[in-house]
Amino acid sequence: MLPFAIVSLLVTVSQGCGRHSGDPDTAVESSYGSLWPLPQKVRFSSLSLKIRGSSFQIRDADESSAGPSCSLLKNAYRRYYEYMFPNERTNGHTNVFADPSELSQLHVWITSSDSECDGYPVVTSDESYELSMNQTYAVLKAPKVWGALRGLETFSQLLYEDEYGARNINLTEISDFPRFQHRGVLLDTSRHFLPIKVILANLEAMTMNKFNVFHWHIVDDPSFPYLSRTFPQLSQMGAYHPYTHVYTPADVKMIIEFARLRGIRVVPEFDTPGHTQSWGKGQKDLLTPCYSGPTPSGTFGPVNPILNTTYDFMNLLFKEVSEVFPDAYVHLGGDEVDFKCWKSNPDITKFMEQHSFGDDYSKLESFYIQKLLDIVTSTQKGYMIWQEVFDNGVKLKPDTLIHVWKGNQQQYQNEMAKITLSGYKTFLSTPWYLNRISYGQDWTSLYRADPHNFTGTDDQKKLVIGGEACMWGEYVDSTNLMPRMWPRASAVGERLWSAKDVTNVNDAYSRLSKHRCRMVERGIQAQSLFSSFCRHEYKGI
Amino acid sequence: MLPFAIVSLLVTVSQGCGRHSGDPDTAVESSYGSLWPLPQKVRFSSLSLKIRGSSFQIRDADESSAGPSCSLLKNAYRRYYEYMFPNERTNGHTNVFADPSELSQLHVWITSSDSECDGYPVVTSDESYELSMNQTYAVLKAPKVWGALRGLETFSQLLYEDEYGARNINLTEISDFPRFQHRGVLLDTSRHFLPIKVILANLEAMTMNKFNVFHWHIVDDPSFPYLSRTFPQLSQMGAYHPYTHVYTPADVKMIIEFARLRGIRVVPEFDTPGHTQSWGKGQKDLLTPCYSGPTPSGTFGPVNPILNTTYDFMNLLFKEVSEVFPDAYVHLGGDEVDFKCWKSNPDITKFMEQHSFGDDYSKLESFYIQKLLDIVTSTQKGYMIWQEVFDNGVKLKPDTLIHVWKGNQQQYQNEMAKITLSGYKTFLSTPWYLNRISYGQDWTSLYRADPHNFTGTDDQKKLVIGGEACMWGEYVDSTNLMPRMWPRASAVGERLWSAKDVTNVNDAYSRLSKHRCRMVERGIQAQSLFSSFCRHEYKGI
Repeated sequence: MLPFAIVSLLVTVSQGCGRHSGDPDTAVESSYGSLWPLPQKVRFSSLSLKIRGSSFQIRDADESSAGPSCSLLKNAYRRYYEYMFPNERTNGHTNVFADPSELSQLHVWITSSDSECDGYPVVTSDESYELSMNQTYAVLKAPKVWGALRGLETFSQLLYEDEYGARNINLTEISDFPRFQHRGVLLDTSRHFLPIKVILANLEAMTMNKFNVFHWHIVDDPSFPYLSRTFPQLSQMGAYHPYTHVYTPADVKMIIEFARLRGIRVVPEFDTPGHTQSWGKGQKDLLTPCYSGPTPSGTFGPVNPILNTTYDFMNLLFKEVSEVFPDAYVHLGGDEVDFKCWKSNPDITKFMEQHSFGDDYSKLESFYIQKLLDIVTSTQKGYMIWQEVFDNGVKLKPDTLIHVWKGNQQQYQNEMAKITLSGYKTFLSTPWYLNRISYGQDWTSLYRADPHNFTGTDDQKKLVIGGEACMWGEYVDSTNLMPRMWPRASAVGERLWSAKDVTNVNDAYSRLSKHRCRMVERGIQAQSLFSSFCRHEYKGI
Repeated sequence: MLPFAIVSLLVTVSQGCGRHSGDPDTAVESSYGSLWPLPQKVRFSSLSLKIRGSSFQIRDADESSAGPSCSLLKNAYRRYYEYMFPNERTNGHTNVFADPSELSQLHVWITSSDSECDGYPVVTSDESYELSMNQTYAVLKAPKVWGALRGLETFSQLLYEDEYGARNINLTEISDFPRFQHRGVLLDTSRHFLPIKVILANLEAMTMNKFNVFHWHIVDDPSFPYLSRTFPQLSQMGAYHPYTHVYTPADVKMIIEFARLRGIRVVPEFDTPGHTQSWGKGQKDLLTPCYSGPTPSGTFGPVNPILNTTYDFMNLLFKEVSEVFPDAYVHLGGDEVDFKCWKSNPDITKFMEQHSFGDDYSKLESFYIQKLLDIVTSTQKGYMIWQEVFDNGVKLKPDTLIHVWKGNQQQYQNEMAKITLSGYKTFLSTPWYLNRISYGQDWTSLYRADPHNFTGTDDQKKLVIGGEACMWGEYVDSTNLMPRMWPRASAVGERLWSAKDVTNVNDAYSRLSKHRCRMVERGIQAQSLFSSFCRHEYKGI
């Protein structure tokens, strides 16, 4: 490798950590080009190298533990080659004499003996990588394929066009790893059904922003689009339409594999005991009959926690879920349980008396959740739950992940402190409900939120595994999901990946504007930050 | 015609005029099906007729004054045939024996001797129509083609699918006309360039909602995408990109014709003397040089009103504009003039003294506007201006249209009262800035605003010609314009077309939900109102 010392101008840029109020100054030009999220360490040189689609190769390094059989990497090479050279017509194998200042190869070197090429990403997956280059080739070193995926995205972001349209890359060294392990995006496919195309496009945008968890809030009150092999009547009766508005086992499998190839975990959420109106349509006696005085009103409340059949059902359903979804975690929901219906039901009242629950229906809720947690534990899965389950004092396994979503800033920070003080791991969504929209550059407030900003010890902070950008579906469907999500979710993406002191919104604006145009060029319907233009405007309409 | 009296069940439904606060009740089913905007008079019968794509014909009535040469109608027949029978593979000429309860023809009868088929719509165009049918054919009567276009849209909205997927239509009589003459949508192609595809898609959606004015805010501070034949350097230097981000004369012509075929006027806005930063890039000495103390600062302010060259330029530019745009009106802007730069400039100060303007820079603004109005008047065009021009007391021609956009509800209502008291015509945009977004069903507040809700006499009310939904471009480009515009603009569309007492938001929710799914089926990326589904979800992504 060419020693960096001899490069004519070597710039080590340090990121300011100032906090800015109001909108960003759009005149600032970042010295980091279009990098998003910003890597942990970047050393740019001013030496630019040409890079040519007709001869450029991405290939396995000779020393790499991931060989030709690693289709995850092969897919990624193709994807990034196409992103970098979208109009290239030749085959990438033209072996011409390279210009002395031409970068002609990228060697991808998986350094660990187990590349994990055929595995699934997990919460502890190593996503670190190092990128270095001399004047003829670049090397991307990563312990695992997951880091290589992240590094390929970064490498592709280093390319830029000169005034003749020729592609260039500056001699650069990067050493990078994520600040948080859990960097998620939640999609809600119950309030509106999202066609598979939208889910896949969103997964593609997620990789471009180094997200690694797709939290699939797959069912809820309005509809049950998950086609269960064990209980097909759930979607038959509970989906908006039994054929066109369901996810078949093949769909689910395909989505999981598409995500895996991008280093993204798929964590399904089957939220109970509330948020289950659609479940009741296909599963008799699952929900609590509400009473109006002494007689059933004909409406139904949360899952009925007093029947054995409920637990038989949950046992079978979560057994299936644990087999269909390879991830080590299932999200069990547990939020917003409305006690009104339970209170109205005389059988529940009797049950409460028998169990000495008094008037405390959160005890009944805990009773249910406890049994559900035992069921899920028996499937060898870990679980995530919304914060209410913790707040209600349900006994949790030590490895439970608690999902914070409620309150204002002060309240969620207190909650994070409380959870971590109890020794539980947690991740944050409160400031990142992307379905909530407002006029103007609201990405800056998403960008300013930080999961570590609460009062607690270092050990407490270590229990914060990350966060999730949530896109609830009341007002979102396939017509508006993508522009509403991107690049607003990108702001969350950088917060969760980059160093804590990367907080300069002017610098972020400059990089993010370019990053969003790059997303648009790659076919992602990502909306603009402010008056401006992209060289290639979105024409997908 | 089958007399309506013998139809078994004849329902004349009357629209409630109650005002509802908060979100609509989503359980209400409108008795008006999916009609949007609601016609002035509808009489439904419960008698349903089959309608079959393979044999259904839309044709000129024998008595119609618009014959086979009227390509505007021919285009509309094709368009609505395709909307109504999107999957029809046969040719529509199969002459089979019709079922006795099958509607097999729609006769379009232009009753006035001048159909206006080859003309352009104007503010006084007759858009009224009547629709009636017996058990075998329907008749659409309209004085002019403009009414026929509106009636074809209405007719297409009467079709519905039964449980077998067969198309049906109920025997219906409709008599319809717009409440307001001016029903506009503003697009801003300066803050972001909008590809022609987006403008055309928006024009298509406008017809589906019976809008009739495309207010094209074509240039502004950030960019000048209008390619002027007289001053090509304006876009050469002032557009975001001189080739990819401009509207050529051919583009403009095509957009105007596309709009004409849908009964939509194209009113261009060339906003001066403010909002002209991009103009200055290609036109030397057009803008006022700002001073920092005794020396020019290098920045520029509004159009320089003290130079003769300014008026020479405007003369030539507006001569071209008057030829390129056939509409009888040009929008001249005149909003938000910042006096800071004028105040700093010593030549302006001298000019102010010479003209005894004192310190009142609005007098200088009026001086400029007055000269501009004279120039535009000499091109035989009428003009529209933003309310500031009126507020500043500029002398206006009696036929000037004053565009209200400022203030809160009380303020814009006072402004409407003041303008109409002065005898001027006006139209409203303040409550309809669709670029401003907020969480939830904000269409209901758009829907509740009414241009007649101010204190004034009937004669004053008659001076209100309508309103415009505005989509300013700071945060809107081709990625998010359509879902942000539709169906929110639809709410404005009904307010401007339907009777004043059509204000029931529950009824509107029911119809609008179906109307938006219809727009989606027709390829319009119209977002959802709330948790729900469309039979055919948007898959354009």
